[in-house]
Amino acid sequence: MGLYPDCPEDKFMAKAAEPPSGTRDFLADDVRRRKAAFDTIARVFERYGFDPLETPAFERLEVFVGKLGEEASSLIFKILKRGVHEASGEADLALRYDHTVPLARVFGTYAGRLPSPYKRYAIGPVWRADRAAKGRFREFAQCDVDTVGSASPLADAEVVWAMHDGLEALGIREFQFLVNSRQALYGLLEAYAIPGELGTRVLGSLDKLDKMAPDAVMAELVERGLTAATAEGLVADVTAPDTDRVRKQLDVTERGRLGLAEVDRLLQLTAGLPADRVIFTPRMVRGLDYYTGPIFEVTAAGYPGSIASGGRYDGLVARLGGPDVPACGGSIGVERILAIQAASEGGQPTELDVALTVLGAEDNIMRLAGELRGHGLRVGVYLGSSAKLTKQLRWANDQRARSVVIYGPEEQQAGEVTVRNMETGDQVRVPFAEALTHLRAK
Amino acid sequence: MGLYPDCPEDKFMAKAAEPPSGTRDFLADDVRRRKAAFDTIARVFERYGFDPLETPAFERLEVFVGKLGEEASSLIFKILKRGVHEASGEADLALRYDHTVPLARVFGTYAGRLPSPYKRYAIGPVWRADRAAKGRFREFAQCDVDTVGSASPLADAEVVWAMHDGLEALGIREFQFLVNSRQALYGLLEAYAIPGELGTRVLGSLDKLDKMAPDAVMAELVERGLTAATAEGLVADVTAPDTDRVRKQLDVTERGRLGLAEVDRLLQLTAGLPADRVIFTPRMVRGLDYYTGPIFEVTAAGYPGSIASGGRYDGLVARLGGPDVPACGGSIGVERILAIQAASEGGQPTELDVALTVLGAEDNIMRLAGELRGHGLRVGVYLGSSAKLTKQLRWANDQRARSVVIYGPEEQQAGEVTVRNMETGDQVRVPFAEALTHLRAK
Repeated sequence: MGLYPDCPEDKFMAKAAEPPSGTRDFLADDVRRRKAAFDTIARVFERYGFDPLETPAFERLEVFVGKLGEEASSLIFKILKRGVHEASGEADLALRYDHTVPLARVFGTYAGRLPSPYKRYAIGPVWRADRAAKGRFREFAQCDVDTVGSASPLADAEVVWAMHDGLEALGIREFQFLVNSRQALYGLLEAYAIPGELGTRVLGSLDKLDKMAPDAVMAELVERGLTAATAEGLVADVTAPDTDRVRKQLDVTERGRLGLAEVDRLLQLTAGLPADRVIFTPRMVRGLDYYTGPIFEVTAAGYPGSIASGGRYDGLVARLGGPDVPACGGSIGVERILAIQAASEGGQPTELDVALTVLGAEDNIMRLAGELRGHGLRVGVYLGSSAKLTKQLRWANDQRARSVVIYGPEEQQAGEVTVRNMETGDQVRVPFAEALTHLRAK
Repeated sequence: MGLYPDCPEDKFMAKAAEPPSGTRDFLADDVRRRKAAFDTIARVFERYGFDPLETPAFERLEVFVGKLGEEASSLIFKILKRGVHEASGEADLALRYDHTVPLARVFGTYAGRLPSPYKRYAIGPVWRADRAAKGRFREFAQCDVDTVGSASPLADAEVVWAMHDGLEALGIREFQFLVNSRQALYGLLEAYAIPGELGTRVLGSLDKLDKMAPDAVMAELVERGLTAATAEGLVADVTAPDTDRVRKQLDVTERGRLGLAEVDRLLQLTAGLPADRVIFTPRMVRGLDYYTGPIFEVTAAGYPGSIASGGRYDGLVARLGGPDVPACGGSIGVERILAIQAASEGGQPTELDVALTVLGAEDNIMRLAGELRGHGLRVGVYLGSSAKLTKQLRWANDQRARSVVIYGPEEQQAGEVTVRNMETGDQVRVPFAEALTHLRAK
């Protein structure tokens, strides 16, 4: 049924445009659910002394040029130069691709004026000109927490701890931080004397062990140039039921020992978290090549893939145009979490505390509405053109109102109102002057 | 002083980019101040049964084409087509110019599924490729509240009432809604038999009476083609100390009577607001030509110009591509309000409840930090590389911490911590196990 009986739906449905491909309109329930989640995460990060940072939706195009890989660069939304527009086709701005490039820029811009280390969180949309697909968006929220300017293992532990508390606050119960170290992975390659030029691809194969059978990964490793013995040894090391085997291999090289020490320090410093929340996972690689130290990924019961990830990325801020400083951080996959939680939720919440029907005496109605709102109640007044109570009650019902106030000619005469409980259908008459007290008490 | 003594500031200041012209980075205090204001306004609008709506940062370019005037169209940021980029220079998306065009688009897209009337608020950034100037931004927040689909005067009153409560909640004390009606203004032109083609320019001159002397406005009106007598009569009508004079003129034509009835109805329906908050102001025009009924503007002591405005704009939604529906709404000038409030605020808030120094025993420190945060305290742990207490205390001071915990070798030996009150400088030693209780009690 259309909203306007005298305006056939197809008349304006023809004009109606969908939001741009890969973007979404968020109506009331979605906005509220998203805001609640973002506020929850922010509250947790604040407890850790992370400060909020909001950068513009776009940056100068040159801030991105040469900073992102080829694939990422092709996903940047570019904005035409002001005034010139289509005439020249020249772009000089680009929409925020992530929160990390702006962080590096801000750190360069304000370095001397920011606290040291600079601990910040950023929760907000980023834009990517990606191919549209189910569950892949061109506008989506990222939720990052980072510490720039500290090499201390306490900084890594703090990021893990803060993200842990954030996930718990979002109502996720069973989850695990899979922890490893880039140095440990490189140490393992050294222990097997795997040539440097093969390293990245070998790690890429190991990264598939969460989805692929060990045999298939071994075959891929042999294809990539390892001997069968090396491939088998490597896969056995990182998939063994306990970590004794890989610990022995890591002990062979200095780099391996360094990596193992990083992992163990992180485990110690997060020992205050519930048991088995943080687990050394030797096969875990994390795709992004900018990580340099401890890395982690979070898996949770009921959620496919990982719902959060991060690690230490010393040197990245300099690569992105900022100063050469150590840094670590992580990101909560809040869109993924929201999508799963929304799908599992049922029922619609009450929308109005009180719906006021209008059957004359509008001035009194507006006054009562003002008083009720003054006491924090969510109050709707009927704004339609029908003078029929049944139609107005249908409106109140559509608004999912808890109570409805009826103030018709009879009530006006008696100086009373009828209050109807929309859940039970019960009605009571109370003096107009007591309507406020009566409705507040409910 | 730079953050990194071994990295001269000018080394990276050369690389440091400012945010794009006309945009701002919001660091911690700014983000918190803005979020608090937006949340405050949202809470008020929710009480009135307005629902939040968030549309994408950009719309298909065609949604804007032909919908905005020439000037506005030239201010649209256009985004290059995905994949094509500079090659063709073709744009297919445009950044949100305001919240009204997306509202019209959404109303067309979801009409049958939205409540009727659709009452929504939108608080968020819009982007305009305007010439950069002091206080004029290319990215700034707009804060709109609108009711689409109701012709009832209750809807107008509700918008005024909600905006009133919003401004009050923002801490603005002395302010007034200057109310008029487009119908009243047209009625006045009719009463003086001013030809239709002069109407818009005559109203434009009257609109200057808040800044220009009546004589100057009369001169301008004569220049625009009115007789001296008409110009004088008109200006006298709308600037008279009381409204009796203009009421008599409005009573002459049907349109005038209609407009006056609109104004009086709005005054009646907002009579519950504090006295003198809503004032009939016959000289108030509101520049935008899409208003069709009651209009208003809010002035406040200490704020230049108007801090909020709005009115009824039946027909605009159809002009913007949606269905032909009545609508009214308003906008709070939240950037202007925030700028004035920020300028008048002094002092920096406490940033950390507790700062934990690190002089060994990191595992215990992280555990204590976790417990304190678990009780909602904002806690920072020293993440720098110095083992010197004086340097760590300087960090705690920079962090504006209320208390500092010192857990040096001596304290560790004794199983105690030293808690220093950073306001008074007082120090006490308490058993480590009681640190949590002690710090919570503060």
